[in-house]
Amino acid sequence: MKHYIGAGNPMHAQFEPKASYTAKHFAWSFADGIGTITLNRPERKNPLTFDSYAELRDLFRALNYATDVKVIVITGAGGNFCSGGDVHEIIGPLTKMEMPALLEFTRMTGDLVKAIRACPQPIIGAIDGICAGAGAMIALACDIRYGTPATKTAFLFTRVGLAGADMGACALLPRMIGQGRASELLFSGRAMTAAEGHAWGFFNALHESVALLEAATTMARELAAGPTFAHGMTKTMLSQEWSMTIDQAIEAEAQAQAICMQTEDFKRAYEAFANKRKPAFQGD
Amino acid sequence: MKHYIGAGNPMHAQFEPKASYTAKHFAWSFADGIGTITLNRPERKNPLTFDSYAELRDLFRALNYATDVKVIVITGAGGNFCSGGDVHEIIGPLTKMEMPALLEFTRMTGDLVKAIRACPQPIIGAIDGICAGAGAMIALACDIRYGTPATKTAFLFTRVGLAGADMGACALLPRMIGQGRASELLFSGRAMTAAEGHAWGFFNALHESVALLEAATTMARELAAGPTFAHGMTKTMLSQEWSMTIDQAIEAEAQAQAICMQTEDFKRAYEAFANKRKPAFQGD
Amino acid sequence: MKHYIGAGNPMHAQFEPKASYTAKHFAWSFADGIGTITLNRPERKNPLTFDSYAELRDLFRALNYATDVKVIVITGAGGNFCSGGDVHEIIGPLTKMEMPALLEFTRMTGDLVKAIRACPQPIIGAIDGICAGAGAMIALACDIRYGTPATKTAFLFTRVGLAGADMGACALLPRMIGQGRASELLFSGRAMTAAEGHAWGFFNALHESVALLEAATTMARELAAGPTFAHGMTKTMLSQEWSMTIDQAIEAEAQAQAICMQTEDFKRAYEAFANKRKPAFQGD
Repeated sequence: MKHYIGAGNPMHAQFEPKASYTAKHFAWSFADGIGTITLNRPERKNPLTFDSYAELRDLFRALNYATDVKVIVITGAGGNFCSGGDVHEIIGPLTKMEMPALLEFTRMTGDLVKAIRACPQPIIGAIDGICAGAGAMIALACDIRYGTPATKTAFLFTRVGLAGADMGACALLPRMIGQGRASELLFSGRAMTAAEGHAWGFFNALHESVALLEAATTMARELAAGPTFAHGMTKTMLSQEWSMTIDQAIEAEAQAQAICMQTEDFKRAYEAFANKRKPAFQGD
Repeated sequence: MKHYIGAGNPMHAQFEPKASYTAKHFAWSFADGIGTITLNRPERKNPLTFDSYAELRDLFRALNYATDVKVIVITGAGGNFCSGGDVHEIIGPLTKMEMPALLEFTRMTGDLVKAIRACPQPIIGAIDGICAGAGAMIALACDIRYGTPATKTAFLFTRVGLAGADMGACALLPRMIGQGRASELLFSGRAMTAAEGHAWGFFNALHESVALLEAATTMARELAAGPTFAHGMTKTMLSQEWSMTIDQAIEAEAQAQAICMQTEDFKRAYEAFANKRKPAFQGD
Repeated sequence: MKHYIGAGNPMHAQFEPKASYTAKHFAWSFADGIGTITLNRPERKNPLTFDSYAELRDLFRALNYATDVKVIVITGAGGNFCSGGDVHEIIGPLTKMEMPALLEFTRMTGDLVKAIRACPQPIIGAIDGICAGAGAMIALACDIRYGTPATKTAFLFTRVGLAGADMGACALLPRMIGQGRASELLFSGRAMTAAEGHAWGFFNALHESVALLEAATTMARELAAGPTFAHGMTKTMLSQEWSMTIDQAIEAEAQAQAICMQTEDFKRAYEAFANKRKPAFQGD
């Protein structure tokens, strides 16, 4: 299958979040097809601000057209993932806003989750320490999540007087850990322990803090070396089929997989297999 | 946010299931914003009858407008939760009915589950001993479930010659414990042990029988002391987003949470936080 | 409830996969209402071919009208379940096809899953050893799954350069084991161990290899001795309610269960119960 990759493709021209990109409100690095986002206000446990929400949203939206970026790792600096919306910079101002501005805010935070789900790159969360509020939602929006024994994940919206319905929590969390466990967490706002998160399927694995980022990066490298066009289709379909009927989902996959059967990577895999080699995928 | 509470609100006038309410077909008590329903025919393990189904349905429907009731606890008397539809009072008559009457019955039992899901109060099930048939469905419809090591939960419809499709079981149970486990329970009708129920996410916790009701009431008090308007929104959205797409769910939550951001409880939380106090929520 | 059973019913005339049926591309046996399918190319770990896909699809479609067949067991010969689409007989030819033929293939494989889900018989998978690719999807499409400690289940489409979106995987697997675990398996293509599969709800139980088929057959006998018309309704509704709202699902079950309340099996159960006997269900 021929398709445009990189700078030659006008669809990719508007933004290329690669090595040259310097993020303003978090740290960004790029190597070997892997982009790493580090929330980095460690003195405050990496809270989010209006600006960092917006920049994250814009980055994930741009990733739709950044075919050189194969996988994303997202993590936090200083032993914590993210403490959520900053109390002083976000919650204070929100208490004074009128409805149109409130809705603009809740839509922006929701747009971040939409963008994380909509970009074709698999997103791997490396999540240590505090993972709270909007931070927990960013974690929940990842495709693969690694924690540490110390990770505390709290959908604590109720603790600030709000509903558990924030950025898609009432839709996403029940599908991740079961409706009953999700209900308890969202009503109580209590922290899910790392052990619970692992047993319940929120975390794919737990690693010691010192090994966490390397574990995430190892998986990222494995995925980046895979058939990344097909990975993008896997990701699209995991979201696309969310509320389809079984028959609709099967038809949707018949079409999606037929598209992938026209990629070079499919041919490469067959030829490698026939020659008892390991395939060298190239993402096209 | 100003809204009408209590007797002054004409929307609340039709029914007020508070301290003064005396239930006919189960026990009702009310204190500190917590309504407790006790199925109380312990000599028969608390079966349901046409009358108790209807009264439960009416009570849960009325709770929609009973803003003074913040949380519901539902339990059974005498060490069992509920043995389901009474064999003599319900199953016998059903075997003699024509279709319109049968459908009237199955719709009434379904309406009970709809009403439990539709009222804004979080419902906490305190479930000991036998929890069978329609009793298991009432348990399944709760938001939070506590069991004991002795709880046996059986979706045993197949044992009386019926489908596992009763009161929403084929929709609700798979989302609670997984599609495969739900399928086995619904086809076989076997009892799920308490240990299975806990490991699979049906029960949020197990407690000894003597501590069960107190554990449920403790959680009820915690939730009743929380932002109960927001809790109602959490509950609404958990049901509302059941079969939305991810993007629809995120937009729905953007609207729902923006509404909650106009409550006084949100301001109270911020002010308490800014002053390093614990917020005193009032549910408005 | 009167309905036509067996050869006298013109709706059943076109195909009767019973004792007389001889399958060409797998083994079929029938006894006591239980049909057993054995994938039987053990020297290659029971791969699928264009022919076996098509014959399986046709068999499951025919089962819709084969009311004498009450339960299906599906297993593999020689200690493995199924290695998926044959590399030489399927993957090679696919790499050379144009889109219409590719889509015809992906639709055929999808139709197999649709047919497995659509027939009224509960399907029990007895799954040992390798369970990979399309084989993993057949396993996933079963209602009840038993494995052994040696079962390795791999949704390995990514390993051949394709998407995890194959035959409904992105819809079915998340509901079976949770969205996060499913995502990791579908992106990485790694094998799920038997222990993971059991802990995560993919397998209902693990048995030693020597006991596996007997365990599946025992459950099949139990279900075949049950109210099989109602079992068919349970199966229909488990699929039917997949993406309904809660209220739609409850109304759908009110109708479905009212239908089952007109069966003779429901009356038999009541009469047996009233006379303290075990009911003898007959499936009508």
